[in-house]
Amino acid sequence: MNYTFTQNMFSSQDMVLVCRTEKEYKIHEKMKEIGDGIKKLKKEKLEGFREKISEEVAKLLELKASLPDEGQKKFVLKTPKGTRDFNPYQMSIREGAFTKIIAAFKRHGAETIDTPVFELKETLTGKYGEDSKLIYDLADQGGELLSLRYDLTVPFARYLAMNKITNIKRYHIAKVYRRDNPAMTRGRYREFYQCDFDIAGQFDPMIPDAECVKIVAEILESLELGDYVVKVNDRKILDGMFAACGVPEDKFRSICSAVDKLDKTFWSDVRAEMIDEKGLDPVAADKIGKYVELKGGLDLVDKLLQDENLIKESSAKQGLEDMKLLLKYCELFGVLDKVSFDLSLARGLDYYTGVIYEAVLLGFSHTPGTESEETIGVGSVAGGGRYDKLVGMFDPKNKIVPCVGVSIGIERIFSILEARAMASEKKGRTTSTEVYVISAQKNMLEHRLQLCKELWDSDIKTEQSYKKNPKMLDQFQACENNGIPLAVIIGDSEIKNNVVKLRIIETRAEREVPRSEMVEEIRKELANL
Amino acid sequence: MNYTFTQNMFSSQDMVLVCRTEKEYKIHEKMKEIGDGIKKLKKEKLEGFREKISEEVAKLLELKASLPDEGQKKFVLKTPKGTRDFNPYQMSIREGAFTKIIAAFKRHGAETIDTPVFELKETLTGKYGEDSKLIYDLADQGGELLSLRYDLTVPFARYLAMNKITNIKRYHIAKVYRRDNPAMTRGRYREFYQCDFDIAGQFDPMIPDAECVKIVAEILESLELGDYVVKVNDRKILDGMFAACGVPEDKFRSICSAVDKLDKTFWSDVRAEMIDEKGLDPVAADKIGKYVELKGGLDLVDKLLQDENLIKESSAKQGLEDMKLLLKYCELFGVLDKVSFDLSLARGLDYYTGVIYEAVLLGFSHTPGTESEETIGVGSVAGGGRYDKLVGMFDPKNKIVPCVGVSIGIERIFSILEARAMASEKKGRTTSTEVYVISAQKNMLEHRLQLCKELWDSDIKTEQSYKKNPKMLDQFQACENNGIPLAVIIGDSEIKNNVVKLRIIETRAEREVPRSEMVEEIRKELANL
Repeated sequence: MNYTFTQNMFSSQDMVLVCRTEKEYKIHEKMKEIGDGIKKLKKEKLEGFREKISEEVAKLLELKASLPDEGQKKFVLKTPKGTRDFNPYQMSIREGAFTKIIAAFKRHGAETIDTPVFELKETLTGKYGEDSKLIYDLADQGGELLSLRYDLTVPFARYLAMNKITNIKRYHIAKVYRRDNPAMTRGRYREFYQCDFDIAGQFDPMIPDAECVKIVAEILESLELGDYVVKVNDRKILDGMFAACGVPEDKFRSICSAVDKLDKTFWSDVRAEMIDEKGLDPVAADKIGKYVELKGGLDLVDKLLQDENLIKESSAKQGLEDMKLLLKYCELFGVLDKVSFDLSLARGLDYYTGVIYEAVLLGFSHTPGTESEETIGVGSVAGGGRYDKLVGMFDPKNKIVPCVGVSIGIERIFSILEARAMASEKKGRTTSTEVYVISAQKNMLEHRLQLCKELWDSDIKTEQSYKKNPKMLDQFQACENNGIPLAVIIGDSEIKNNVVKLRIIETRAEREVPRSEMVEEIRKELANL
Repeated sequence: MNYTFTQNMFSSQDMVLVCRTEKEYKIHEKMKEIGDGIKKLKKEKLEGFREKISEEVAKLLELKASLPDEGQKKFVLKTPKGTRDFNPYQMSIREGAFTKIIAAFKRHGAETIDTPVFELKETLTGKYGEDSKLIYDLADQGGELLSLRYDLTVPFARYLAMNKITNIKRYHIAKVYRRDNPAMTRGRYREFYQCDFDIAGQFDPMIPDAECVKIVAEILESLELGDYVVKVNDRKILDGMFAACGVPEDKFRSICSAVDKLDKTFWSDVRAEMIDEKGLDPVAADKIGKYVELKGGLDLVDKLLQDENLIKESSAKQGLEDMKLLLKYCELFGVLDKVSFDLSLARGLDYYTGVIYEAVLLGFSHTPGTESEETIGVGSVAGGGRYDKLVGMFDPKNKIVPCVGVSIGIERIFSILEARAMASEKKGRTTSTEVYVISAQKNMLEHRLQLCKELWDSDIKTEQSYKKNPKMLDQFQACENNGIPLAVIIGDSEIKNNVVKLRIIETRAEREVPRSEMVEEIRKELANL
């Protein structure tokens, strides 16, 4: 296949009406067979052909009547809502991004694990707060009740508790599932990859937490996504702030959920949700409104440490001291200029207990200065935080394993990389074939098969035409279209002289090479390319 | 984490009873808090402490009463039936196998695609015959009815029809789902990876079909799994044989399903199924019984081409002529000695229309000559075939895209590689960390953070302790345990002299290196290793 950049290639995939069950398919086949028979009868005009045709037409009509009604038989040929296929070109972009992300995780010493795509339903119960309604359940077909994983964090915590692991640094790249409203042009899907990096263990404050910021910065920079900011906050600061503003303790999580919407909606809407839906005192809401406007760096931490109303809440004081340390370590890691301490950052999930993160791209201009310059709103591209109590929820003795981690939102990043590729003129390769074996004339198939065998067995990436007697031009065209750099050509004269012709596709230079030196000569040419 | 080889590591994972919903978890936390308070009161013995303790104990009892009964609150901490986690060591084995398999696919010029883990239920309907009952359905939560993919072949056909692709060579490595009876020690799971290679397009007979045999041979040889045989047959030969034996056409598929069980059960049981369950004439069954005993090579093809009863069926004749060509091409590919034309090979799936394959390992002795020599029955490790009509079932105009492909059964292969690793003395690494940054004394954390930053930014894989003031011995131990080859040591004297100490872990050799030359010196050392 060739991939050229057309708008269409990246558009949402066609929906085609099809009419196929297996039974129906067989009826169609039979009808076609009878139809062909009728044509033949008409052509041959043998004795009694008219009667025979009438008989066959009757059969045909009977078969047609046995097909289901139009209305019943159609179904839409598509992927499920909020999901998509990846074609080979998209896969090459995706794999390029994964390679960079995995390199960063390994640079920081992470191992990898894998868990099943579904968990026992009860494993996920009570971990996601208001978002639990978005979990995909499997049908009850007898046996255990199962749900598709909603993230990689809860399965990780389940894994740690189940295997009694108290100390691990791991990454996990896998698909997760959410029955959310998809916004596919902005990279929001119901099936999407997460790339998670987490550090579990009882350590000194903020050392692993700062490494998570560093790793996000390394990844976003290696992907060349333009300027970005890593927002940070702390659930302890939020809880202290809620207490200081007069929010009752049992409303902390639901008010936190409302604050989380500030990146998408106006304060006035969030305030209304707090008061009307969640029954918060308007005075408390307005106090929160003042705090969530604040963002800054070490200066803001110091200012808040002077806020007596706030720091009388011990959790706020603790959170601010942690934040000071986090920012200091970020400075040592050389990423402080990318970090913004932001009191409006809340994160939706229930399980966070300390630092929380969210990385946001500040805009994306794919080819600065050109006419087609545009900005794609992709929102957050990474998020995470500290969740010290999640593993304990799975442990029979409630044993605590403190954890902190980040998750890279690869789908949003992918939508940017894809748009960039779309804007580019360059055509990418989706295979890495090195040699194409070409028949110079008819009846060379057996010789080609032997040459392919020899090349494959020498670990040289080789293709050939699947036709017995392909045209010379088609074979050269296959090399050009697929960016294959070398061709080995075989014909009667080459066989007679016990040589092959080696052709450099780009320069069209050809030379004869003794058959016994073919592999060696090809290796030399490949090394030169 | 360290991984040592113990029997336990590979045994089925623990099931632990846990008692955690979020609410319950909070009650436990509160109870713990009150308990700690009581201990404190008892210790301090302040005025009125006895009354205070009584009050607190009353609270404790009240909370305890609010917990659900023992019976209700326990759930089993496990992965769903037939599934498993992969720990980092298992992941390194799995990734090693994938690397070799992908290399073979790319050597043959394949591109890769991805499809969603679930499809519209109707996409899978009518494709798998008797096996359809094993499909996992998703719960109806409103919207489309969905099922987890059962294989990668049907989604591939759906992808081709939807995108009107008539010519592609692709591989796809992804998990598929079957509600089968798991036999996990033999590598049979409900969630398992398939590694599929398929060639779609209208080509000359048996050229892509023979390449599938070649690729299976290359993969099994690169994985060093010992001797194997690739059984081949053809659905056309089977259909012709059924017709020649007097099986009515509408029973072909169900009799074919019965023949498929011959690799697991005796002929007498299969015969009984044909006669008692499927209503076949015993005379026909006995004729089939004679044929399915046959296996061989080109000699058998020639012998059957003399069998007039058989070759009067045009499909048998066509199938045998194709088989002759397939075996000839396999000879040219140098794999004929691994191929067995086997009339008992049937394959369960409905959609095959031509050649079918199944690769079987002939036994596996992990360390020949040692006491622990044993054979693991892993059965088939690859399978596939030609399915010329599947894409047409999805096309509104019934357009045919002929396809042939093979699927590598990686789980079974993995169970062998895992057993081999278990029997080996060698400990494998699960990380690739190159340098560990070590504090030679207290209060070096900030310097370590700066060193880590510099090393990470130079793309050197680096770790350090997450403790503020780790012990020297613990830091050296971390290097030894995790196979990290180099350490950078920093202390007051190094800071004063603007150097670091570079230590080769294996030899314990240490030397001072100017701070400005650290990265360069480390690169040199790494190149030497």
